[in-house]
Amino acid sequence: MIIVLKAEATKHDADEILNKIESAGLKPLYMPGTERTVLGALGDERVLQGLNITAHPMVDDVKPILSNYKLVSRELYPADSVVHIGSVPFGGEHFSIIGGPCAVEGLESFRASAEAAVKGGAVALRGGAFKPRTSPYSFQGGGKEALEVMQQVSKELGVPAVTEVMDTADIDLICQHVDALQIGARNMQNFNLLKAVGRTNTPVILKRGIAATIEETLLAAEYIVDAGNPNVILCERGIRTFETATRNTLDLNAVALMKRKSHLPVIVDPSHGTGIRELVGPLAKAAVAVGADGVIIEVHHEPKEALSDGKQSLYPDQFAQLMTELDAFIRAAGRRSSLRKAA
Amino acid sequence: MIIVLKAEATKHDADEILNKIESAGLKPLYMPGTERTVLGALGDERVLQGLNITAHPMVDDVKPILSNYKLVSRELYPADSVVHIGSVPFGGEHFSIIGGPCAVEGLESFRASAEAAVKGGAVALRGGAFKPRTSPYSFQGGGKEALEVMQQVSKELGVPAVTEVMDTADIDLICQHVDALQIGARNMQNFNLLKAVGRTNTPVILKRGIAATIEETLLAAEYIVDAGNPNVILCERGIRTFETATRNTLDLNAVALMKRKSHLPVIVDPSHGTGIRELVGPLAKAAVAVGADGVIIEVHHEPKEALSDGKQSLYPDQFAQLMTELDAFIRAAGRRSSLRKAA
Amino acid sequence: MIIVLKAEATKHDADEILNKIESAGLKPLYMPGTERTVLGALGDERVLQGLNITAHPMVDDVKPILSNYKLVSRELYPADSVVHIGSVPFGGEHFSIIGGPCAVEGLESFRASAEAAVKGGAVALRGGAFKPRTSPYSFQGGGKEALEVMQQVSKELGVPAVTEVMDTADIDLICQHVDALQIGARNMQNFNLLKAVGRTNTPVILKRGIAATIEETLLAAEYIVDAGNPNVILCERGIRTFETATRNTLDLNAVALMKRKSHLPVIVDPSHGTGIRELVGPLAKAAVAVGADGVIIEVHHEPKEALSDGKQSLYPDQFAQLMTELDAFIRAAGRRSSLRKAA
Amino acid sequence: MIIVLKAEATKHDADEILNKIESAGLKPLYMPGTERTVLGALGDERVLQGLNITAHPMVDDVKPILSNYKLVSRELYPADSVVHIGSVPFGGEHFSIIGGPCAVEGLESFRASAEAAVKGGAVALRGGAFKPRTSPYSFQGGGKEALEVMQQVSKELGVPAVTEVMDTADIDLICQHVDALQIGARNMQNFNLLKAVGRTNTPVILKRGIAATIEETLLAAEYIVDAGNPNVILCERGIRTFETATRNTLDLNAVALMKRKSHLPVIVDPSHGTGIRELVGPLAKAAVAVGADGVIIEVHHEPKEALSDGKQSLYPDQFAQLMTELDAFIRAAGRRSSLRKAA
Repeated sequence: MIIVLKAEATKHDADEILNKIESAGLKPLYMPGTERTVLGALGDERVLQGLNITAHPMVDDVKPILSNYKLVSRELYPADSVVHIGSVPFGGEHFSIIGGPCAVEGLESFRASAEAAVKGGAVALRGGAFKPRTSPYSFQGGGKEALEVMQQVSKELGVPAVTEVMDTADIDLICQHVDALQIGARNMQNFNLLKAVGRTNTPVILKRGIAATIEETLLAAEYIVDAGNPNVILCERGIRTFETATRNTLDLNAVALMKRKSHLPVIVDPSHGTGIRELVGPLAKAAVAVGADGVIIEVHHEPKEALSDGKQSLYPDQFAQLMTELDAFIRAAGRRSSLRKAA
Repeated sequence: MIIVLKAEATKHDADEILNKIESAGLKPLYMPGTERTVLGALGDERVLQGLNITAHPMVDDVKPILSNYKLVSRELYPADSVVHIGSVPFGGEHFSIIGGPCAVEGLESFRASAEAAVKGGAVALRGGAFKPRTSPYSFQGGGKEALEVMQQVSKELGVPAVTEVMDTADIDLICQHVDALQIGARNMQNFNLLKAVGRTNTPVILKRGIAATIEETLLAAEYIVDAGNPNVILCERGIRTFETATRNTLDLNAVALMKRKSHLPVIVDPSHGTGIRELVGPLAKAAVAVGADGVIIEVHHEPKEALSDGKQSLYPDQFAQLMTELDAFIRAAGRRSSLRKAA
Repeated sequence: MIIVLKAEATKHDADEILNKIESAGLKPLYMPGTERTVLGALGDERVLQGLNITAHPMVDDVKPILSNYKLVSRELYPADSVVHIGSVPFGGEHFSIIGGPCAVEGLESFRASAEAAVKGGAVALRGGAFKPRTSPYSFQGGGKEALEVMQQVSKELGVPAVTEVMDTADIDLICQHVDALQIGARNMQNFNLLKAVGRTNTPVILKRGIAATIEETLLAAEYIVDAGNPNVILCERGIRTFETATRNTLDLNAVALMKRKSHLPVIVDPSHGTGIRELVGPLAKAAVAVGADGVIIEVHHEPKEALSDGKQSLYPDQFAQLMTELDAFIRAAGRRSSLRKAA
Repeated sequence: MIIVLKAEATKHDADEILNKIESAGLKPLYMPGTERTVLGALGDERVLQGLNITAHPMVDDVKPILSNYKLVSRELYPADSVVHIGSVPFGGEHFSIIGGPCAVEGLESFRASAEAAVKGGAVALRGGAFKPRTSPYSFQGGGKEALEVMQQVSKELGVPAVTEVMDTADIDLICQHVDALQIGARNMQNFNLLKAVGRTNTPVILKRGIAATIEETLLAAEYIVDAGNPNVILCERGIRTFETATRNTLDLNAVALMKRKSHLPVIVDPSHGTGIRELVGPLAKAAVAVGADGVIIEVHHEPKEALSDGKQSLYPDQFAQLMTELDAFIRAAGRRSSLRKAA
């Protein structure tokens, strides 16, 4: 339920109503605005109605939240949320680019790929330390050592880093080494993991599951925010369909719709979304045009040698070239690129 | 098989080889270029090899065509094809916009919608005269009368028109009234219809089936070109997936991949591809960015009153606004808009 | 609208009401039963209500038909329809097996495969004369000659035959040679073809499209019945999903649901539904168990030599073995096998 | 690699080869048979070839394992595995039925549903204590108390129980209360959870993910077996497709194919696989016919009151009726029902 207070309502009025909400066992939300203060009440609809909040003299309007997700909904927070990874903003007027290799394969290799990414225009680094692999016999990631490599290179280059978390037991360790957690597509409905990252303050990139609906994706984000962490960035990375010519089907409809339904920033992963190096560029441009707040792209200093996903990783010069070409679309979209901070 | 002749080869040499191909029961293709002449030979691979064309003194190179489609493949024709509907070019450097209502509902109504489309920036008109409807009890289209309406309005406004053909028996009638034929998604593998439109010279917009792979779509185009009509424009209009929040899942990966695999122009239908008015604009922009050669958009003078697809039709002012916004993306893509001829 | 007359209502009463329905421009239906006569009225719901049929003294009850399909719905006709191909019944207590090769490849070959099918237990023959092929360069079927082959072998063996129709222009020719028409998956929403076969009295096997919902399938059947031909047999032949280990995903949920929603017989094609010879048997048994009214199975006298679909065709002895094994499941299902007429 | 020893090979020969495999850093497998002993070697194929095992005088044949999964493959173990939950066998000649409510809602309620299940013919109980729910605001399960309820009722009725595990932290607790762990569809690729249950000896029912291919499902099972727990039962519970008339599309093709590819038992969940009470029976019968080793069915003493999945839960009398009807199909399939132990 959304409760719009009258312009003359004081903080004291708000507290009175918030207390009433809380004492009924519901979740109170306080959202002061420049003109009006808005309150929220989440929980059993029947209890909510029983509170008879409309009757309070300082309440101007009471509206139900129609969607199943509440905290991530634009119904509750109409304005764009801006989430920062390190000092890099995602959302609002900003368009930000994350680059790096699929997996962290060692210090020299990661440094080379990361330098290529940052030189090309990336403002944050990606790299996998714990890798979810379909087969138990595939490379499972470098673990703690890989995290240390990421931290060192991230410091050297002065850009924040993000890596995937697969287990609640690893969250603390990862938070000590990098700036943001990624929930992978396979874990989008690993609800205990969602709740656990929701208990941190670390930004979370939440990837849509390969067969998750838009609603299920927003409800997964709701788990994190409801647990206390509002710093969620949604990521469209392709869904599984009948089409096999591409690794996944990048669903840009979903980006446009999630931007309308939710105030959270939405980024796009054209590397996994296509699985084909030559398609990464066109789809990254389309991501800008459709209204995404950023892209996350795989770039590797030597894709032929990559331990995973080499086929979809850009060469350093391809990445740099793409970043240049993206600029025109970012401007056409009326966005401000977080690209090339120094420039 | 692709046969590259030496620079000094004459037309006589080419004819000699073409005759040899034809007399073996294969399909010969003659493709003179500015520097070199290239020949093609389509048919049984074993017969092709038996011809021993490599041995001809004027043959520089012989390469197999690896894809299952041949005539529509870039392997055979590396350069972009430009297909004209009336005088409007699709493909190459051009970006062209088709607009109009879902169905032709009568002269006054169609004229109003068409005027809105052209005023906004459309350079060709769409409208359904024969409508494929899921239920036998739904409006089935205006038939011949609707065609006459389209022809009249098309002439009045000086822009070409396109309409869907569902039956081989209607092809002649439709060709007499409009400038291009559309094969709808449900008929993409109606092979007799493909062959029949392939026997005309009228341009054909071939819509991808809702569950057709990219390869199947290109093979459907191959049916038309193989039957004699090279004027095919491919159209991505969304595929059917598990996601139900949008009417279809617009597959822009497919646009980028088809542009790489085929020399045919590819346009995008964001109206059917999303089914939601508010998403048409973002996805139209994404279509430009991903490299499409045009868009086909539903615009209706009074969407609330539309007999079909009202929910996804743009209002006239929305359409005009979108056309203006598209301009920036068309320029960013380095394309030339066929938009606003008069301007 | 379903109109249940009182027990004492006469034919004269029924006619009076039917005339009223017809003169309002609606479609009247007369369904005399053993205890009660039921009438139907199809068309614009508002007109229907305006008729005020409830007021007629001989009307006991008036109920709306809730589904979008009417004539094929169990709401209108609660009892199972039995459709005959030649003298072979499909539906009700009967379970009937159609067998034969994918394509008719010549007299000797078809005869050998057909003999294997009939000897094994098939009571009707299948075989393609007009083949819908993804590529224009694949074998397109034997056409008229193949029809003549089918007719001859069908007569020799004393069993009816069914073949696919792809074009309205071929309907008459096919009806002169075989006993039933098949609408293939690719043409399930070729509405003009549906209407055209609906104007014959020849039984139609309507295959579900690879991406057609159950509702769309029943509406396609409605087109045929609405055009005048009640002899429709639905066929589940697998849908297209993300799974690529099997050619299609056989949707037996759909069989159970269509049997509940519609009175039409439903058969299953485990050959196309799996695409793998070794899976045909298990899925045929599952089809019996789930409540299907028959199966259509590809059997070829020499699968290795088949021009199409050899990989999914059973060898003669496999087919005979399967038919024997099916018997136990047919009995378990309380059905009567049309299998082995002579026995 | 599969190494078949000669008939006269001794345990000493086997050990010699196994040591060689192990000392090369590969995983050795010892599989004594009645006539021959078979060894396995898993790991890097190049190292394997370098061992030159073929040269050993007691080695009869060396074959590669072609599939990506090894331990769960029939290539390695051709015979059916039988996995026991409590004393109830799954696999081989046995067909076993698990029944119970979606969630454990309290002692009285669970006891009533469990009694209905056992009385009807179930030989094991299901019930959710930790519930994966799409929305954070839905009932999340009874947790430890629910486990205690399950344990008590399981003892009272003398049948084993199975419940879902969502978190590695809960494994020990669950193993202390019930007889088998279930990995739900959403966690099928939660690889840390797979490894963790693989370190127990408790039987695991592994549900296929809603968009998991058959290969991915078998590789998920491989994770568990590779970690040390061979007691895995695969469960087909429906995949997500474009069809919305049913909750999921039950993929019985997958059951038949997994039975061919793997020696593990495969059961079917027609409750989640259809989501519609009336379809549970037909699909349970189809599961028997297609070759499944058991079914897991939701039955609730009062479905109308169920906190989750009431729409797909059977009433006690429906469940009992279905069990009776299943018998005929179990016999037709040549299987022995674990049903009705007392009888």
